[in-house]
Amino acid sequence: MVRIVEVGPRDGLQNESVPIPTETKRSFVEALLSAGLFEIEATSFVSPKWVPQLADASELLASLGSPEGARFSALVPNRTGLERALASGVGRIAVFTAASDAFTVKNIGMTVKASLATFAEVVAAFRAARPDGWVRGYVSTAFECPYAGRVEPAVVVGVCTRLLELGVDEISLGDTIGVAAPREVRALTAAVLGSVPTGMLAYHFHDTRGTAIANVAEALEHGVTAFDASAAGLGGCPYAPGAGGNLATEDLVYFLERSGVPTGVDPVALARASLPVLGVLGRSPGSKVQRAVLGA
Amino acid sequence: MVRIVEVGPRDGLQNESVPIPTETKRSFVEALLSAGLFEIEATSFVSPKWVPQLADASELLASLGSPEGARFSALVPNRTGLERALASGVGRIAVFTAASDAFTVKNIGMTVKASLATFAEVVAAFRAARPDGWVRGYVSTAFECPYAGRVEPAVVVGVCTRLLELGVDEISLGDTIGVAAPREVRALTAAVLGSVPTGMLAYHFHDTRGTAIANVAEALEHGVTAFDASAAGLGGCPYAPGAGGNLATEDLVYFLERSGVPTGVDPVALARASLPVLGVLGRSPGSKVQRAVLGA
Repeated sequence: MVRIVEVGPRDGLQNESVPIPTETKRSFVEALLSAGLFEIEATSFVSPKWVPQLADASELLASLGSPEGARFSALVPNRTGLERALASGVGRIAVFTAASDAFTVKNIGMTVKASLATFAEVVAAFRAARPDGWVRGYVSTAFECPYAGRVEPAVVVGVCTRLLELGVDEISLGDTIGVAAPREVRALTAAVLGSVPTGMLAYHFHDTRGTAIANVAEALEHGVTAFDASAAGLGGCPYAPGAGGNLATEDLVYFLERSGVPTGVDPVALARASLPVLGVLGRSPGSKVQRAVLGA
Repeated sequence: MVRIVEVGPRDGLQNESVPIPTETKRSFVEALLSAGLFEIEATSFVSPKWVPQLADASELLASLGSPEGARFSALVPNRTGLERALASGVGRIAVFTAASDAFTVKNIGMTVKASLATFAEVVAAFRAARPDGWVRGYVSTAFECPYAGRVEPAVVVGVCTRLLELGVDEISLGDTIGVAAPREVRALTAAVLGSVPTGMLAYHFHDTRGTAIANVAEALEHGVTAFDASAAGLGGCPYAPGAGGNLATEDLVYFLERSGVPTGVDPVALARASLPVLGVLGRSPGSKVQRAVLGA
């Protein structure tokens, strides 16, 4: 069984400057649930100063409530964010570091080591407040850093080991700039699975250069069972609108089903789920399968 | 060594209703050559009544001449087309059938068997006139037919065997509607390589649902060394403009190079090669890597 972690509402929307009404976000998340996606990273408790788009994190989670089967999570960057997350009642959080200091310094203003020290506090405080809670650790730039170039698997393994020591339940390795090819996935997976149990590993591929599905196919061959994706391929786009960013959930679901891996997801409902958001953004359907399904 | 067969000038343009000036096509082909692509299916000797876009086949080939290293080919649908092809002096032709009668009847007005009988004449006449010539046979709908559903590998093997008997030099198997996943590529490749020598097999993937690169990766694993692609992903689009059709050459080259398979292609020159054509069509860069390279 493969788990799909839908990150559209958080990772997909965080870089969008056009404000999306909370009500539209709620409809989006509920439509994703109805389509059969249950693990949804719904929002982030990053400072509203930095990401105004997600300033409504508490309000959104409150409006969503606790539908049966839903496993909502929220990104938590620091202690302040954690206080808000705990107050919201969300039981699943994600922390975000990388395998390259050059990237974390530019992105979150601290080295990888410093970010891990911050997360040690965050995770400990979360565990104390929510013994039933669940924590995911993101490792960004797991293949290549836009500032420092290729990243060695051993470096990624080092960050993973530290995240395991902090007590995360899952690690999601990101091809943040969408450059990886399957042979790199093979090498990184082999290295990481020496330290991380298979069931705790997820991949977060970007499709910037069309390699995401090939990378998923490679990871599946090595037993990886969790993949992040974003409806309509929302977000993660370092270039112009329309260029590929996050792997689109529609494309992932199509690939898995066609490969004989059942997902339980309704492809038509999924293709439609993001339409209200795309409407606000003034954008056409964004993924290949979404366009194929909708004939759009 | 992997061969890339660039089909943009023929397969990419044949469905475009906006007329492209011959001079623009010539620039396009020359830019592809300059980028390092040498095998180029430049045009088709289909009846200008059916495909007015390619009515300038003879004129285009004459204007291109015989640049060093270039291996231009042209599609030839019948004896009339062959006469024009022979008069043009082109030394490489391609004939086009499919693995589904429902498709060939709709597409070329005859059964697969009847099309093979036609091609037997075409190939024999071409061989007689051009003993040094080279012939490619396309087998469309090698995975699934839009009218008759899934196609069994055994049916494809049957068509391949007949093409080999006709004396083709290469067979290109097409995922015409862009539905295949790697496990189907694995099954079809295993079946076909029982009859077709590896060096005579090419794949022609469409990226309609984002699986093309994963399919190339799978085929490479089984020793396949030739892949068709279309600059900017031009053509082959059964849905709206923007939906993925042909596998984009830019995406294929990126994937191969990143996988350690040298192509000799300059990615920037390739990304720019189709811009004049896209300009006439009023279209933005069409492939993921093209957009990434051009920052467009």
